[in-house]
Amino acid sequence: MRPRLSALRLTHHTLISCGLATLLASCAAAGTGASTHGTQPALPRNIILMIGDGMGFHQVSAYRQFADNPATPALEATVFDDLLIGSLATRPFGEADQITDSAAGATAYSCGIKTRNGAIGVGTDGKPCVTLLEYAKQRGKRTGVVVTSQITHATPASFFAHAGSRKQISEIAGQLVGLPASLQLDVAFGGGSADFTAEALSTLQNGGMQVINDRKALAALKRTPAIAMFAAQGLPKAIDRDANVPSLAEMTDKALTLLRSEPKGFFLMVEGSQIDWASHANDIVGTVSEMQDFAAAIQVARRFAAEQPDTLIVITADHETGGLALGRDKKGYWHTALLRQVRASAAGMAARVVAGADAVATLESWSPIRADVADKQTLQQAGRDGDKLEDAFAAIVSRHSLTGWTTTGHTGADVPLYAVGPGSDALRGHHDNSWLGQQLLRWLQVN
Amino acid sequence: MRPRLSALRLTHHTLISCGLATLLASCAAAGTGASTHGTQPALPRNIILMIGDGMGFHQVSAYRQFADNPATPALEATVFDDLLIGSLATRPFGEADQITDSAAGATAYSCGIKTRNGAIGVGTDGKPCVTLLEYAKQRGKRTGVVVTSQITHATPASFFAHAGSRKQISEIAGQLVGLPASLQLDVAFGGGSADFTAEALSTLQNGGMQVINDRKALAALKRTPAIAMFAAQGLPKAIDRDANVPSLAEMTDKALTLLRSEPKGFFLMVEGSQIDWASHANDIVGTVSEMQDFAAAIQVARRFAAEQPDTLIVITADHETGGLALGRDKKGYWHTALLRQVRASAAGMAARVVAGADAVATLESWSPIRADVADKQTLQQAGRDGDKLEDAFAAIVSRHSLTGWTTTGHTGADVPLYAVGPGSDALRGHHDNSWLGQQLLRWLQVN
Repeated sequence: MRPRLSALRLTHHTLISCGLATLLASCAAAGTGASTHGTQPALPRNIILMIGDGMGFHQVSAYRQFADNPATPALEATVFDDLLIGSLATRPFGEADQITDSAAGATAYSCGIKTRNGAIGVGTDGKPCVTLLEYAKQRGKRTGVVVTSQITHATPASFFAHAGSRKQISEIAGQLVGLPASLQLDVAFGGGSADFTAEALSTLQNGGMQVINDRKALAALKRTPAIAMFAAQGLPKAIDRDANVPSLAEMTDKALTLLRSEPKGFFLMVEGSQIDWASHANDIVGTVSEMQDFAAAIQVARRFAAEQPDTLIVITADHETGGLALGRDKKGYWHTALLRQVRASAAGMAARVVAGADAVATLESWSPIRADVADKQTLQQAGRDGDKLEDAFAAIVSRHSLTGWTTTGHTGADVPLYAVGPGSDALRGHHDNSWLGQQLLRWLQVN
Repeated sequence: MRPRLSALRLTHHTLISCGLATLLASCAAAGTGASTHGTQPALPRNIILMIGDGMGFHQVSAYRQFADNPATPALEATVFDDLLIGSLATRPFGEADQITDSAAGATAYSCGIKTRNGAIGVGTDGKPCVTLLEYAKQRGKRTGVVVTSQITHATPASFFAHAGSRKQISEIAGQLVGLPASLQLDVAFGGGSADFTAEALSTLQNGGMQVINDRKALAALKRTPAIAMFAAQGLPKAIDRDANVPSLAEMTDKALTLLRSEPKGFFLMVEGSQIDWASHANDIVGTVSEMQDFAAAIQVARRFAAEQPDTLIVITADHETGGLALGRDKKGYWHTALLRQVRASAAGMAARVVAGADAVATLESWSPIRADVADKQTLQQAGRDGDKLEDAFAAIVSRHSLTGWTTTGHTGADVPLYAVGPGSDALRGHHDNSWLGQQLLRWLQVN
């Protein structure tokens, strides 16, 4: 199929003021800082869509300050910085005042449509919409999802499944197992082994799918298709992981290595799933360390794209979580130095207390904070309840670092949009989230 | 003087991957959506720098939802949207964990340097730095500042004065009065007549400066130089203004009309000063209505630039204020419909109560909120104290609209960067705030 120029031309004003060839070669190269100007292909063969769940502009600002080298006066650039090209609005279908959830947010990208909160790859009529993964398969491309949540969680599920509610986990797992060979995922890496019965895993293996569950097996993996689940539910948070659990970067690297040999290219969705979870818990150390895990995966994708210049990388979020602010209570500081010295997430500290450790001793051995009267009271009130302890540790670190939060839910702010590679210039500016999905679908239709 | 290409080439990677002529003509035209592709000049003759004081990404998101037409399913685009090109970090000179104030934030733009909080147009050594306005004057351009704060306030002062502290108001006013003819401001519109003695105003008039203080005189103004102050301190908030006070858009329009005749061009700084003040008060209606006032001024500037394509418009902020979030308390909504029905700022409602009105009756007649027990208690506790009443009205509207705030001070988040016109493509991506000032200085040096 030849590129449908008419469809492309209508999508963005830059396509009107600048001919297609100019846009996708010289303009795109100039705008994205790609080093391949003159040789960059016009349309992407490979698309890597990277979603930082819950990653608002403030999560990115927080990560930049956290990742800064304090030995230099400059605030060092991050892997995000030179790729910033715009922002996306995230409102779901329905009441104008509603804030999106991850299901409607992911379906806006996977199908290019506005749908109701909770909907997984289905429209407002409850009918399945064609996803980017399905389009890619139809075009002979390989596909995959790489996440740190369960593989059946709302964001990845919206790319391969169709369900009226994100809560239909066994339905979503069943759909993955039952995918016809023509739509089978080539790679699916993450957590969530508890969502699949032994029978389901046998069915997958009988169909030719390799099923693995440890880091060594991931390293040894040589061919597709493969599903890898490194935890019963979500992976441990990056800062709490042991040597048996791979990083998002490691999983992304393996996925790209396996997918790259396909001449027709691939579509890969990579999610930093737990930026959202940590921000839901108002856990700033969990948030910035999950951002770091996501950033390392972006670095892997960028190295790949530098070698394979027909690769488009798009990085965005589904919504902001937590109402995170780098400052609170009229203080003129946000204490990143303290955050760099905390060595466990709030959930990680809570798990230690649930396992028998003393709460104050845990706080003081895993962070530089010396518990004051208020901290001790906060911890005492949480008792041995894991969720309450997570909230307590998160609140203590936020108070000492002067980190502000307004909610343990989502907020309605625009989210950042980053991109590099062929086509990225056409994504510039502010758009609706569903517009991005539509644009990616168009590229899958023509290349 | 000819363009110093070597200096320009070093400033941004796009300048390396794309020759200068290509960049500033075809690439810039494509990226910014300018309709003048092919005819756009290479470098800006006129520069309009527009600063939304306290305008973080969340203030822009809030304004978009506030300005949305609820009769249509789409979230309408704003004047900001197609101009989004990047973001700026805002940290001041000093401790790595510190959050900037408006003086250091404005001096980063006016002089292109990092300085300490409170410093007005001086470096960390206390010595004056050369400002954009001074450079522009040296190049034969006209200059001006248009604000809704006092003209002597931190942001505008950092462009024409040099003082160790923003609190040295009489020193700053004295410097404005004593500017040599070669550095005199051509237009200075805003508030703050209380900062100038009768003697100071006489000195200005004897030097040829027109001094005006009402909207009709502004409309009748035919030539420069002119200073206009429409209030003793800051202007009333946009939503509270009467017919005697011009809007920021009206002042901007007059300034552009007066400056446009100069063949060598001009540098104009326009500030939406009170986005910050409203966010300091955690007043969401004040914040979005000040955003609307700023957006209308941007519309005026864009219309001007469409007629004068050698005009560069750069829009940004000095910092975020308030830790604003579009959501709180784990609710899945942010109630913009309510905000659209509030007809006064929190300060405006407070002033009515101080003048004798009943607090509950004021809330209920200027907003759609029916006071509940908690609201009545909040208002009662504020008594007749203007500041406490402002806080009380702001808190009540935030509670009912589900608006979150983390501080009555500033926060450390990155701020958005918007631009259109010649050179705008070289500003793409994420940068330090002082980098933007340096870039604008370079353009004033070469054109």
